[in-house]
Amino acid sequence: MTTDASLIDVALRGWKTNIDRADKLFSSMSEKELQEQIAPGKNRRIYLWGHLTSINDALIPLLGFGERLHPELDSFVSEPDHSAPDLISAKELKRVWDEINARLAAEFARLSPAEWAQKHASVSAEDFAREPHRNRFAILLGRTSHLAYHLGQANLAKE
Amino acid sequence: MTTDASLIDVALRGWKTNIDRADKLFSSMSEKELQEQIAPGKNRRIYLWGHLTSINDALIPLLGFGERLHPELDSFVSEPDHSAPDLISAKELKRVWDEINARLAAEFARLSPAEWAQKHASVSAEDFAREPHRNRFAILLGRTSHLAYHLGQANLAKE
Repeated sequence: MTTDASLIDVALRGWKTNIDRADKLFSSMSEKELQEQIAPGKNRRIYLWGHLTSINDALIPLLGFGERLHPELDSFVSEPDHSAPDLISAKELKRVWDEINARLAAEFARLSPAEWAQKHASVSAEDFAREPHRNRFAILLGRTSHLAYHLGQANLAKE
Repeated sequence: MTTDASLIDVALRGWKTNIDRADKLFSSMSEKELQEQIAPGKNRRIYLWGHLTSINDALIPLLGFGERLHPELDSFVSEPDHSAPDLISAKELKRVWDEINARLAAEFARLSPAEWAQKHASVSAEDFAREPHRNRFAILLGRTSHLAYHLGQANLAKE
């Protein structure tokens, strides 16, 4: 394996580890547990799960793979928990979460190292010429950290 | 910049972003705020800061840079908060945190992409031959996620 392919492999493993942890955590919870807040007055767990699902869905256009599969989940990002309507059941959220993650895994596997180093959709060609670190790989790593950030919160009751 | 150097650059920026966020968060807190629990019955903020500092210190031998600077902080990893003694003041922790992070930044900047793809110190040559993803880069990404995980918890009171 070349060095660049090895670096991508490691990053994709890190992404998958965090997705699997979130999947195990949220999928194992009852509807009642998912409705509980992670700490008094804070987001409900189902909101965090919906938030992570919606962020993952938004990766599809951001990384140039096509259109979002579930734009109806956008209020999990655009609105805070207390004002977000209960859009989706836990069962349906699990189905959509799996669907989006499977699509991302398939698309990720098709990209070459050089394609990972290309610009993402939210940066202009001019800005990218000055700031070549604003590439697809940066989005992958940033979203992995974002997953871990909320996983730390969702796991809080267990620590 | 070659593709592999670009991928490393992005990962180091992600590390620095998370270090800077943690630094800003913890350094701005009063001694009293640092003694507060992140949620009822959970770790104190100063414990999380000490934990992250000790984990960073342990990166020095793990990545082959030399010996730990502050092995005395190990109880922030080996012991849970409620049994860990108050080893260090906030002021001293800030000094040590900065010292360790500066050392890591200097060492990170010296590694070539090929060196990032080399094995870390906790995997044998035999295991690494079978599992080449157990390299320095995997440690960098894993510790970045670990930082983000606890940052999500430490930030909880603000969300």
